[in-house]
Amino acid sequence: MCELLGMNCNVPTDICFSFTGFRERGGATNVHADGWGIAFFEGQGARLFLDPTPSAQSPLAEWVKAYPIHSTNVIAHIRKATKGAVGLENTHPFCRELWGRYWIFAHNGDLKNFYPTFNGSVLPVGKTDSERAFCLILQTLRARFHKAPSEEALFESICQITLEIAEFGECNFLLSQGDSLFAHASTRLSYIVRQAPFQTAHLKDQDLSVDFQKVTSDTDRVAIVATLPLTDDEIWNEIPAGTLCEFKDGALIRQAQTKVGVRATP
Amino acid sequence: MCELLGMNCNVPTDICFSFTGFRERGGATNVHADGWGIAFFEGQGARLFLDPTPSAQSPLAEWVKAYPIHSTNVIAHIRKATKGAVGLENTHPFCRELWGRYWIFAHNGDLKNFYPTFNGSVLPVGKTDSERAFCLILQTLRARFHKAPSEEALFESICQITLEIAEFGECNFLLSQGDSLFAHASTRLSYIVRQAPFQTAHLKDQDLSVDFQKVTSDTDRVAIVATLPLTDDEIWNEIPAGTLCEFKDGALIRQAQTKVGVRATP
Repeated sequence: MCELLGMNCNVPTDICFSFTGFRERGGATNVHADGWGIAFFEGQGARLFLDPTPSAQSPLAEWVKAYPIHSTNVIAHIRKATKGAVGLENTHPFCRELWGRYWIFAHNGDLKNFYPTFNGSVLPVGKTDSERAFCLILQTLRARFHKAPSEEALFESICQITLEIAEFGECNFLLSQGDSLFAHASTRLSYIVRQAPFQTAHLKDQDLSVDFQKVTSDTDRVAIVATLPLTDDEIWNEIPAGTLCEFKDGALIRQAQTKVGVRATP
Repeated sequence: MCELLGMNCNVPTDICFSFTGFRERGGATNVHADGWGIAFFEGQGARLFLDPTPSAQSPLAEWVKAYPIHSTNVIAHIRKATKGAVGLENTHPFCRELWGRYWIFAHNGDLKNFYPTFNGSVLPVGKTDSERAFCLILQTLRARFHKAPSEEALFESICQITLEIAEFGECNFLLSQGDSLFAHASTRLSYIVRQAPFQTAHLKDQDLSVDFQKVTSDTDRVAIVATLPLTDDEIWNEIPAGTLCEFKDGALIRQAQTKVGVRATP
């Protein structure tokens, strides 16, 4: 299993604090030692840092942690290989172009016997079930819409495809085209929205605190999504199993069930 | 105008020495200060480092210079913006997937009134003539071949498309899918093949020498392609204007004219 971290904000924000805790889970405080990656959207552009070495020991992760890249949408992933060898081509997040925009995807889970039919318009390069899921999402969207559809239609389509993929197993994922962050909880995914009045937060995985009031302005809003809560003194919201969420400008703007018959725990 | 740097080898090699000289041209010894990027193939995977800040001042370039990534195919670019604003989405190299492989492209030149018709299968994200040229190459290849063709057919097709694009202006480029490095000289591009017996080389742009004999084995072979020679004590080969070259395993394996009526200077 792997760990996911996503950020969606209304102003470009650096992810140094959250990434500091998150990277410790790649080989230091947790077992996800088979590579890591992080993608930052900056305008229409995207930067993707990938490293098949454990994030806790990676000099590149040290650099990313120290150098504040300001972004409105970030997706990060640390990997515990289940399908596909350890190697750069199997390292998340994955990137493809659709409708003249970059799309970024990272997945946590295990899809059993998942070998969809590809028509050649978007093909996997590596050997993971995760990249196959990403390619199926984009192939379906491309076939359905010649150009980017309305937000509602896009959400509805991603929801339908997710429902099909989730039949094959555990499918927690983060997906973004630079505007919205789509987060699907198949089993485990939590989020928090930080906005004024900002408070202090303390990392779970390292003894580090930050006073967000000192580094933000009153109108800032930041949503953080992670496999497990990253801080131990804030209230995180667990996304119910079988739910697709869409975050935009740091707020949860849409959600829908992707699993029939799922009941919230009382 | 921009500067290009490419490397193609028979064993994974680091590009630290060449990149040290090359990056100085981005804002220190030359005027190419509108961003830079470098892509490394590692197996089927590709790592792309992009930075819209001048390479001579970029902390990321400092990191890339210091951290030896071993690769058989590398493409780097420093940009002097002619078309498209300074920004991440306009920063070379560009990356797309075709036939289940990543393709990387960087361009030096100026294509006038170059607005090809795109069918949606590969679309530009930024606003540069360069990215449009890359997308046209991949769109044409994708339409012509459902899967990767023979080496000869691929070279022939790239040659034909290049001929069409070069009608619009200056079109020096580097292109790779991780196996071969395709280098097109429209005006300026030089290469050198380093192999046993290896010698010492001294950078033009910085007072730095390396004794390749100490860092290589007898069977290593490395081709370096650059807009202008990077060293001042080695003999570089100027690629004739209007020529497409293919390098594989560190050797020049194919070349063809892409300009009718070009005569070599006597």
